Amino acid sequence: MSAHGIVLFGHGARDPRWAEPFERLAGKLRARHGNAGPVSLAFLELMTPDLPAAIAAQAAAGCTTISVVPVFFGQGGHVRRDLPVIVDACRAAHPGVTIHCATAAGEDEGVLDAVADYCVRQITGG
Amino acid sequence: MSAHGIVLFGHGARDPRWAEPFERLAGKLRARHGNAGPVSLAFLELMTPDLPAAIAAQAAAGCTTISVVPVFFGQGGHVRRDLPVIVDACRAAHPGVTIHCATAAGEDEGVLDAVADYCVRQITGG
Repeated sequence: MSAHGIVLFGHGARDPRWAEPFERLAGKLRARHGNAGPVSLAFLELMTPDLPAAIAAQAAAGCTTISVVPVFFGQGGHVRRDLPVIVDACRAAHPGVTIHCATAAGEDEGVLDAVADYCVRQITGG
Repeated sequence: MSAHGIVLFGHGARDPRWAEPFERLAGKLRARHGNAGPVSLAFLELMTPDLPAAIAAQAAAGCTTISVVPVFFGQGGHVRRDLPVIVDACRAAHPGVTIHCATAAGEDEGVLDAVADYCVRQITGG
């Protein structure tokens, strides 16, 4: 069976605690998706692995399709300019793998609704 | 009636399109919270207003309580180190205003669940 991997792509930071919610997110995704393929983290800078390494690992593990999800609020230069260049290089390196790239998670209506709910709970104490 | 303001605090970026989901988020919050007080955006860098300006505007508009919500995935140096220094300076500048500071929205379980759902939709096409 061909596996469909997910790579959660984050900015990265100097503080290792920064990655903690990304680890929790990967855990939630493995619970939802785990039978269909691997779930990995990758970072633009300051943390490892980078995206080419994460994609190479999933390709080596037998993934024929990989979905990259930028876990960013907002699509600035990192998502609009840096990420497509990296993804194109990964496609060239793994011609047998179909690599999809999603828009930034923070653009999704459901995610924004959840953030709005979180903000309201800060006010109401709920 | 004393107003309770919300300030959505984001990183900022050079690309003005980056702020678009923050504007949408503010719109959602105004729909949920609008009768209780103003909802503003503020940025750490590269965009305006900065947090002191946003808080000063809400204080001038009569807010006696202001909740600052960092709209970040992950709590790195910006949220753990830079933000508390800025908030302390704002408290000193506005002693009659109670300023709360939430943890990063991206640490919230509901937000992470929404991001996980978004990722799964990338796979299933749902």
